[in-house]
Order: sequence, then C-alpha cells, then structure tokens
Amino acid sequence: TTVDKGVDFANYFCTYAFLYHQKEMLSDRVRMDAYYNSVFKNKHHFIGKTVLDVGTGSGILAIWSAQAGAKKVYAVEATKMADHARELVKANNLHDIVEVIEGSIEDITLPEKVDVIISEWMGYFLLRESMFDSVICARDRWLKPTGVMYPSHARMWLAPIRSGLGDHKMSDYEGCMDDWHSFVNETKSYYGVDMSVLTKPFSDEQKKYYLQNSLWNNLHPNQVVGTPTILKEIDCLKVTVEDILKVQAVVSSTITKEDTRLCGFGGWFDVHFKGREENPAECEVELTTAPSVDDGTHWGQQVFLLHPPVRVNEKDEVDMNFSMSRSEENHRLMKVDLAYQIKLSSGKMLTPVSNKFYIE
Amino acid sequence: TTVDKGVDFANYFCTYAFLYHQKEMLSDRVRMDAYYNSVFKNKHHFIGKTVLDVGTGSGILAIWSAQAGAKKVYAVEATKMADHARELVKANNLHDIVEVIEGSIEDITLPEKVDVIISEWMGYFLLRESMFDSVICARDRWLKPTGVMYPSHARMWLAPIRSGLGDHKMSDYEGCMDDWHSFVNETKSYYGVDMSVLTKPFSDEQKKYYLQNSLWNNLHPNQVVGTPTILKEIDCLKVTVEDILKVQAVVSSTITKEDTRLCGFGGWFDVHFKGREENPAECEVELTTAPSVDDGTHWGQQVFLLHPPVRVNEKDEVDMNFSMSRSEENHRLMKVDLAYQIKLSSGKMLTPVSNKFYIE
Ligand SMILES: Nc1ncnc2c1ncn2[C@@H]1O[C@H](CSCC[C@H](N)C(=O)O)[C@@H](O)[C@H]1O
Ligand SMILES: Nc1ncnc2c1ncn2[C@@H]1O[C@H](CSCC[C@H](N)C(=O)O)[C@@H](O)[C@H]1O
Repeated sequence: TTVDKGVDFANYFCTYAFLYHQKEMLSDRVRMDAYYNSVFKNKHHFIGKTVLDVGTGSGILAIWSAQAGAKKVYAVEATKMADHARELVKANNLHDIVEVIEGSIEDITLPEKVDVIISEWMGYFLLRESMFDSVICARDRWLKPTGVMYPSHARMWLAPIRSGLGDHKMSDYEGCMDDWHSFVNETKSYYGVDMSVLTKPFSDEQKKYYLQNSLWNNLHPNQVVGTPTILKEIDCLKVTVEDILKVQAVVSSTITKEDTRLCGFGGWFDVHFKGREENPAECEVELTTAPSVDDGTHWGQQVFLLHPPVRVNEKDEVDMNFSMSRSEENHRLMKVDLAYQIKLSSGKMLTPVSNKFYIE
Repeated sequence: TTVDKGVDFANYFCTYAFLYHQKEMLSDRVRMDAYYNSVFKNKHHFIGKTVLDVGTGSGILAIWSAQAGAKKVYAVEATKMADHARELVKANNLHDIVEVIEGSIEDITLPEKVDVIISEWMGYFLLRESMFDSVICARDRWLKPTGVMYPSHARMWLAPIRSGLGDHKMSDYEGCMDDWHSFVNETKSYYGVDMSVLTKPFSDEQKKYYLQNSLWNNLHPNQVVGTPTILKEIDCLKVTVEDILKVQAVVSSTITKEDTRLCGFGGWFDVHFKGREENPAECEVELTTAPSVDDGTHWGQQVFLLHPPVRVNEKDEVDMNFSMSRSEENHRLMKVDLAYQIKLSSGKMLTPVSNKFYIE
C-alpha cells in the first residue's frame, strides 16, 4: 500500500499550511514548556552540535535548538509553512545556523548526519497522523550512531472512565434515526419512492458517526474511575515502523471509585526527554497529556464510549484487550478493537463485550 | 492541468458517499418538487425512451424517470453510493429498467445513445463543484442529436444586498488579530522568540478566511436592496466547458430601497426544464434558489461582503464588473473578482472599488 502524495496532501498536510493551525500548537503551554525546558535545561545536547528538526512547522524547535547553542540546524517542513519558518528564522537572526528546507523528510538529502533529531510528531492518542513513521525514517537515515532523540521515549495509556458524553451521543443518534423515519414516510407519500431498504445502511453509517468514532475530550481527573494502564512503551531510538503498525495489549485495571458507571475508556500519551544511556539528559522532562485540571493540552484525551454504560464498584477488575491498527483508506487514521470483561470483586465474571472504534 | 483522481476523490466525491449527505439533498423540498414535476408533468419525454442520469447518487432521478415510463435508464454514480442506489432500485421493483453503473461518467461506456440526460449537477452559485463539466461530457458522448437535457437552461444572478453578517465577520477578524497580538507578546516573553514578522502573513490568512470567503446564507427577500441582474445564461444543450471556465459580466443594478446600506452582493441561480425547441416541455418547470421566505433551498445564496459597507439610496446605480474563474489548486472551487462603482442618483460617481473573493 503506497501512499499517493497528492491525496496525502489533501487529507493531511494541507491543514499545517495555515498559520492559524501552527498558532494553536504554539499556544499549547504544556507542550511548549516541555519542549522549551527539554532544550534549555539540556544545553549540553545542543552546544556545538548539529540538529535535525523533522516537520519544523513555524520553525520554533529549530530556533530554540539554535538559541541553545547548536552549530547547525536543518529544519525540514513539507508544506509552504517552510517560507514562514524561513522568515521567522531570519527575523530572529539565526539564518546563519538554521537552514529551512522545504520538502518531505523522506525525499530530502542532508549534507551530513546529525547529533540530535528533535520533532513534535505526536497526534491524538500518540499515533494518529502516523507522522512518527517519518521521524523513524529520518533517524535511520540521518542520525549519527551516537545521536539523541528529542523526545526519547513515548507511552500510550488507557483507563476506564465515566462521562455524560455517551448519553448525548446516543440521543443524537436516536434523534437522527427519528428524523430518518419521517424522511422515509415523506419520500414515500410525496414522491412515490420507498426508501426503507436504506434504513439499515443509514443506521450503520450514523452509528459509526455518533457511537463508534472516538471523541476528543479534556477529561477531568475524577472522571477516571480505574487505575490507568500502559498499552505501549516506545524507545524512540530503537522502535521500527513495523513495531507501531499495530498496537496490541492485554491489560487490566482496578476500579477505584465506589458505585459508579463505566461509560468507556480514555486514551492518552506521554513522552519523555531523557537523552540516551551513554549521553543522558541532565534534566529529564516529561510531557503528559493525561487528564488534568490545570494542564490540559490541545491533544486532550481520546474517549471510546460504551453503549450502554455498565455499573461497577470499587475493586472490580476490568480486563481489556486492545488492538489498534491503521485504517485501510487512510494510513494516518486508526481503527481500534477494544474488548473488555468485568470481573466483579465477588469473583463473578460478566459477559465479555467487543467494540470497534475509529480514530478519524 | 489534469486532475489527480485520488485527490479529487479526497476533496470532492468522498462526501457524496454518505447517505447523510444524499438525505440532505433528498430533503430539499424545492429541489425535489422541481425535479419531480419536471419529470411527471412531462411524461412524453420519458415514455418509451432511454435516459441517462449523470451522478445518480441515491438513484432518485433514475427511479422517477423509470416510474414516468422510460424504457431504459442508465444511472451512473462515481462513489460507492452506487451500491445503495442499486438496492433502492431493486426495492422499488425497477431493476428491469434502471441499470446502476458505478464509475465516473467520463470513464464508463454505454451500449447506446440516449433520448434524455437528467442530472442534478448544480453546486453553490451554480458552478461550484464544476460537475457541469461532467454533464457536458456525457451530453457530447451519449445524447442523441434529438435528445433533451433535464434541466435545459440555467442562469446566474447577482444583486446588491444588506446584511449584518459583514459586521460579525469583521469583529471576528478583529478578535482574532487581538488574540494574535497577545500571542506574539507571550511567545516573546515566555519563549524568547519574536513572531512579529508573521503578523502580516497571519493577518492576510485570516482576512481571506473571515472577509474574502463568500458565505452561505439564506437571505430574506427584503435584504435584496437593488434590482437583481443576470450574470450568465446557459443553454444546456449547446454550452461548452470552455464557455463556463470563466464567467464574466458587466451589469448594472438600481437601488430600490431608501437610505440603506450596501453591505455586499448576493449570488444565486435558477434552472429551467423546457425541453428543446423541436420537442418542448408540456409544462415548463423552474427551480430557483433566489432569496425566499418560504422556499429556501440547501443551496441558499452566496454572499460576497464589502468592508466597509456603503450608504446608498433609492435610484442610485451600482455598476458591477464580475469575473469568476476556477481556483488553481482545486478546479471545483472558484475565485471571484468583483469591482463595483456607485453612481448616485445626482449623477455623481463614487470611487470604484475592487474586491477578490473565494468560493471554497
Ligand atoms: N514527512 C514529513 N516531512 C516534512 N514535514 C512533515 C512531515 N510530516 C509532517 N510534517 C510537518 O510536521 C509538522 C508537525 S506539527 C509541529 C510543528 C513544529 N515542529 C512545532 O512543534 O510547533 C507539520 O508542520 C507538518 O507539515
Ligand atoms: N463525473 C461523475 N461521474 C459520476 N458521478 C458523479 C460525477 N460527478 C459527480 N457525480 C455524483 O453526482 C452526484 C451529485 S448529487 C445528486 C444526486 C442525485 N442525482 C439527486 O438528485 O439526489 C453525487 O452523488 C456525485 O458523487
């Protein structure tokens, strides 16, 4: 399955060509603080070094790398945003150090290998957008054997949650089906065509839309009703594309709240800046997108809703079988199989339930 | 400029693959009544005839054609919606007459030429989506020399309007720029990067978004403050793709309201079902998307806003120089140059003003 470049641009890159979108990322203080601190509290990784910024966007990470003392920074950006990055570099007087290159990282050539690869490649629930593939490609082609990855590690998390969203979505779906039924009646009586054969496909389409799409949400920490579990741990220096094509995990969470509703699952990620074993960070920095009252990010969490929710109690166990792979139509989108089974604290096992979700 | 099929699918066709979207069109009573009446009040065009439905979608027009007495209907649809159309045809017992063919009209082959081409190809302001190109292609390849087009004629209209939308959009734009200025200050003080060089490009981007995009709107008839003018008249039997690549018109409207604001221009279209000279309709049907209190359509009108608005008075003249062509990046979207000059009823000419708009 090779990717049509034009289609990929229409579906994916196009949004990054807008300053408005770059600004949204640049306004995410949690994200900005983490990258800023990772660079400026670990200047030893940058002083006199060569750096590659994969997907430089506005140029921000390349500029920081230069300000922290890099000798040379290659800032690669696939979209026309490269022109703005170049202006920004110039206006900040770093054009002797930062070289902005417009092109896909997969296509371009650098004159040398680099000491550091820095990139902000994380999508919703870490892997949506599949941009990490490009970072891996850059690493294999351009990172020195002794080089450092920024960030160096990443993890995916999943936890049982409660939420009122599911009820809303269900009533939206039901409203939409009521509407369909009037539509079928009217089309028959006014226009002599019986549309009822399409009721099933329409219902499937709307179910997918309202009930099976994962939702962006900024969860409150007290909506997390069970112990968070780790689905995947990634060492950015070693992972291969093969390793992230599919994420599979069998995990178990203990309900931590008394008499509550299990309404679904919340997924998030964190990344860490630790340098590498032989050349560690002086100050390790973490960027987490976990539910938080004050430190929400533009990534929020991805919520997978159950219809209907299930009553659970403290000490019940939720066994989860999670599997995520890429959508056939668009490799940057994901599909998820999420089966779960509840083991009551009494020891009784409830019937297992399987769900399909889409991260689109 | 050849079109990449995959990109065209990602940008355009994909939405038509959803029943939800087809249902929106099928729920537009003005649209439905017009096509329904055009067929059933002109059965002589259908009885015993062969018909081609270009872009059959759910199959509705093909089904009506068969119900009106057609001998054979070819129903061509580019998207997977073709499967649903086939089911619908079957469920309405017309599978001996209606043959659903999945494919682009440009690519498929029919076993014979047809007596009638029926199609609902109209986009916002008539030509957005550029689907009429496909109908012209179908006509030149598959319509008999004596054949009839449904619809047979189309017109584009433009009129001076008043509207509060422009003030809203202007204050959205201003709010967005205020936000940008705080962002520039914060980025400088927290993160040591001076973003002010991007102020101009950001402002241009946002101006385009808020002020230069034409807007979908269902205008009230009393928002039309001058006599409507015709920009283009199309005979569907004769028009070529060349004729519609660019729409240029110099037109003049007389203000019909006392002391009012000229806030912009509203564009709409109508189509007619008149058959052809040698084989006219028995009952001519019109489908208009003009501003209307009771008969709004899903097309609404396209509104081009002026910033700032201008005070005008009854009997003032507005001379308009209108030019619309296709966007370079996407041939289904349009760009518009709209220059106007006001001639006061006193005879005095105000300074002419030029605007660029995008129909995206
Ligand atoms: N394969 C690839 N080659 C080059 N640029 C890419 C790429 N895949 C994604 N990108 C770019 O990577 C950027 C990711 S968003 C991050 C932007 C910037 N580094 C910041 O932290 O603010 C987007 O601008 C996108 O266009
Ligand atoms: N070149 C082409 N070949 C085949 N189908 C096309 C086409 N261009 C557009 N279409 C299809 O034409 C339809 C236009 S919408 C109209 C649908 C239907 N005839 C109705 O009146 O309700 C869409 O379903 C779109 O997918």
